[in-house]
Amino acid sequence: TAPFALITGPCQLESREHARMMAERIAEACAATGTRFIFKASYDKANRSSISTERGIGMDKGLQILADIRAEFGCPVLTDVHAADQCAAAAEAVDVIQIPAFLCRQTDLLLAAGATGAAINIKKGQFLAPWDMGNVAAKVASTGNERILLCDRGTSFGYNTLVSDFRGLPVMAATGYPVVFDATHSVQQPGGQGTTSGGQREFAPVLARAACAVGVNALFIETHEDPDNAPSDGPNMIPVDQMAALIGTLRAFDDLAKGGLGSN
Amino acid sequence: TAPFALITGPCQLESREHARMMAERIAEACAATGTRFIFKASYDKANRSSISTERGIGMDKGLQILADIRAEFGCPVLTDVHAADQCAAAAEAVDVIQIPAFLCRQTDLLLAAGATGAAINIKKGQFLAPWDMGNVAAKVASTGNERILLCDRGTSFGYNTLVSDFRGLPVMAATGYPVVFDATHSVQQPGGQGTTSGGQREFAPVLARAACAVGVNALFIETHEDPDNAPSDGPNMIPVDQMAALIGTLRAFDDLAKGGLGSN
Amino acid sequence: TAPFALITGPCQLESREHARMMAERIAEACAATGTRFIFKASYDKANRSSISTERGIGMDKGLQILADIRAEFGCPVLTDVHAADQCAAAAEAVDVIQIPAFLCRQTDLLLAAGATGAAINIKKGQFLAPWDMGNVAAKVASTGNERILLCDRGTSFGYNTLVSDFRGLPVMAATGYPVVFDATHSVQQPGGQGTTSGGQREFAPVLARAACAVGVNALFIETHEDPDNAPSDGPNMIPVDQMAALIGTLRAFDDLAKGGLGSN
Amino acid sequence: TAPFALITGPCQLESREHARMMAERIAEACAATGTRFIFKASYDKANRSSISTERGIGMDKGLQILADIRAEFGCPVLTDVHAADQCAAAAEAVDVIQIPAFLCRQTDLLLAAGATGAAINIKKGQFLAPWDMGNVAAKVASTGNERILLCDRGTSFGYNTLVSDFRGLPVMAATGYPVVFDATHSVQQPGGQGTTSGGQREFAPVLARAACAVGVNALFIETHEDPDNAPSDGPNMIPVDQMAALIGTLRAFDDLAKGGLGSN
Repeated sequence: TAPFALITGPCQLESREHARMMAERIAEACAATGTRFIFKASYDKANRSSISTERGIGMDKGLQILADIRAEFGCPVLTDVHAADQCAAAAEAVDVIQIPAFLCRQTDLLLAAGATGAAINIKKGQFLAPWDMGNVAAKVASTGNERILLCDRGTSFGYNTLVSDFRGLPVMAATGYPVVFDATHSVQQPGGQGTTSGGQREFAPVLARAACAVGVNALFIETHEDPDNAPSDGPNMIPVDQMAALIGTLRAFDDLAKGGLGSN
Repeated sequence: TAPFALITGPCQLESREHARMMAERIAEACAATGTRFIFKASYDKANRSSISTERGIGMDKGLQILADIRAEFGCPVLTDVHAADQCAAAAEAVDVIQIPAFLCRQTDLLLAAGATGAAINIKKGQFLAPWDMGNVAAKVASTGNERILLCDRGTSFGYNTLVSDFRGLPVMAATGYPVVFDATHSVQQPGGQGTTSGGQREFAPVLARAACAVGVNALFIETHEDPDNAPSDGPNMIPVDQMAALIGTLRAFDDLAKGGLGSN
Repeated sequence: TAPFALITGPCQLESREHARMMAERIAEACAATGTRFIFKASYDKANRSSISTERGIGMDKGLQILADIRAEFGCPVLTDVHAADQCAAAAEAVDVIQIPAFLCRQTDLLLAAGATGAAINIKKGQFLAPWDMGNVAAKVASTGNERILLCDRGTSFGYNTLVSDFRGLPVMAATGYPVVFDATHSVQQPGGQGTTSGGQREFAPVLARAACAVGVNALFIETHEDPDNAPSDGPNMIPVDQMAALIGTLRAFDDLAKGGLGSN
Repeated sequence: TAPFALITGPCQLESREHARMMAERIAEACAATGTRFIFKASYDKANRSSISTERGIGMDKGLQILADIRAEFGCPVLTDVHAADQCAAAAEAVDVIQIPAFLCRQTDLLLAAGATGAAINIKKGQFLAPWDMGNVAAKVASTGNERILLCDRGTSFGYNTLVSDFRGLPVMAATGYPVVFDATHSVQQPGGQGTTSGGQREFAPVLARAACAVGVNALFIETHEDPDNAPSDGPNMIPVDQMAALIGTLRAFDDLAKGGLGSN
């Protein structure tokens, strides 16, 4: 099995310069281990806790920046879509279209995304059991597109809290599709700070290590050069200057899990 | 305080004849108690468990039927929307636009719905705490539209199960907006039957009684003349021939709660 | 069906004088509605959050006070036991032995309690499904003692939070044993205040109304003349000067539920 | 940091011969990796789902067998206690006294166990947050006995289901006490089979790998030569003939986590 791919980037596109700077620093962080990365950023935060928070840079401008990042850095790029009519345009700019967790049951969005032929990373809804993701994937697959990834980003556990159930990773893997673990959204505390979501950044590496030991095809880890001042998801993003060390650690667990020891 | 309004109807529009028959039987069921009802039906089941299940009659045809029901029966009508660009057309046909629970954080949908000036019934996401609905309502209110209802339809509780936390009703009422309790979706078992959701119909009246005793402005109860053969949500709908008796019971609890006894 | 019985009293026995004063005030609060009450108090808080909090007055002294309350006020009395060897002594002093929620699966305790022939009020563990209480009751019933009550005091919901699932009341009633709803422990926030448990007293009447509408044989409501300064469970107890009004309200819902309207 | 210690053995003592056979097979399974094991078995299943299931061999006989296992195999032995008056006798026979999860808040039991001076393995209640275990440990520590281990065996997640929250391991480790992960009870399905608990044996190695990657001082894994016919906990025990391979895998993750890579 191949080493994990790393879906990473800032939560949202802030500017072309910021995206280029982040891509460069991520490329550096991945270099020592030869880790393949997929650059992720959102052009629109379409479901934020409160109306008074930043939405983002917009689709046209955002997709252009992502396409440029791909061209300049030679890396695949990923973004999330929020409506069926965004899929075609997104697929021209990015390699992977992401379905947000809240929208993972929206049939039209899944069909439109699938029809583009792009790879589709579907986040498991916080309200969904891992075994229910087979039906979700089947909606995309009905378009003839089998380039599907299933991503766990935590499950509702009481109020304002998520829990990561690591039994879900092998359950989702039983579909035959690659499985992704989203370490930074899994430590979100939805709605936990009044008008924004809180987070427990310190546990993201802990859960990522666990995911690698269980076995995943990809990890999703958002990063920022200054998370505490990031426009969204700051409480759970990893400072980019810690990424190289974290990737090194995670690759060691991943190598171990994939070196034949993971058979028990 | 006024007696509860009843949002009721079949889960989905099956045909003009079916909708008229249901509206007639609902009107009869409400007559004895003089209960005001809002006829509810969906023109599209946009987030079903599986791709292989029925989607519905379509927007154009569905909205026309709803407008005709309104004209013929003189009752307000309600339907749910799934994309921002459906709101304007829906608002021409219906009195109340409903935001599905999974979509309750989608800013564009909330803004588009609010901008129509129609009343907006927002279902609380299964993944959301009741105190987080204030931020959700504020998105609609930012359009200048304060005709907002907040509706509880259960909260994720482990896998494939919802629980109704009745503390949530007064918590949501503290926003100042009317509060609705959805008795039939609260007993859904999401994904609990393979490719469809299961349900525990027998508990819907139990929870509805509890909601009336706690105090609500409206109840939401889906009904069908033959739930076991309904195209969707059969396991949790109430047979229409049981509605008159159920409404009678619930009105008694509602009257009691609103007659000054509810002050403790 | 008979009106609900009310299990009520201070969380713990503070002194003979305090217990008498509470019993007197409770008797007054119940007088107007003719509500039967069972005086409840604990002689030992055996499972408190922290070692540094008050344990209680002790078994010998506590049982004597309870026996005296019974003699003076002519009411049944209830206390909870924590070990099998306490049951026989407790049964000499009290009418109802209560099994704490954490201990509801301890076979020896259930058998010893059952063997006394006293009525046994078993609290459902916060970790237990309502349908699993049949097996718990069967342990007591195996002693030949069928004087069993099953009591819901909330179910674990994430961390430091309980939720009351009102489907559980009819589920437990299907065993054939009377069902009790504990309104004040159901609003506890276990561990929510560092070294003591927190609580949301304001929701206890809300949940008690819901329980009456659903249908119960008894309510459990702890009360105190000064909850904010009570040695335990202060955050969720009801001030005794509010009890008469609360009982009046609850009796109205109870009467309605039991007057033939509760058949739906 | 030392490699993990392994707490292992059959769920319950079946006979002297069975215990000796299991200890021998466990010693063999641990030999290749030099893994230190603590032999675990229960003399009494005091909180089973149903009265109709096996209780066990009894305290006197059970403790003698455990003492003999210790003498013959030179390994520490562990058993669980269910009442304060069992602690002194247990401490004469075993090295580690275990507090069952349901009983982790019972002050008298914790004090009696602590007073023996034995090491005390406290299972976190399924109803308790990991940060609430500090208060639990303080009860034992108040006796002057700081030989405390804190063990996670899953947290209530809806009905009949547990979830392992791996953030809890570092949270409990922050107390300064060694942390244990119980891989086989974490995959129990409490009450999930009518009169016994179910289990998902296949996920125990998955969760154990995750725990090693996160970092633990000890693992708890029950084992049996024929789990499907074991008198208790069969659905979640690991067949003893798979233990050597499993231990080898887990030691590799443990070594990696403790080799300096675990700093992220």
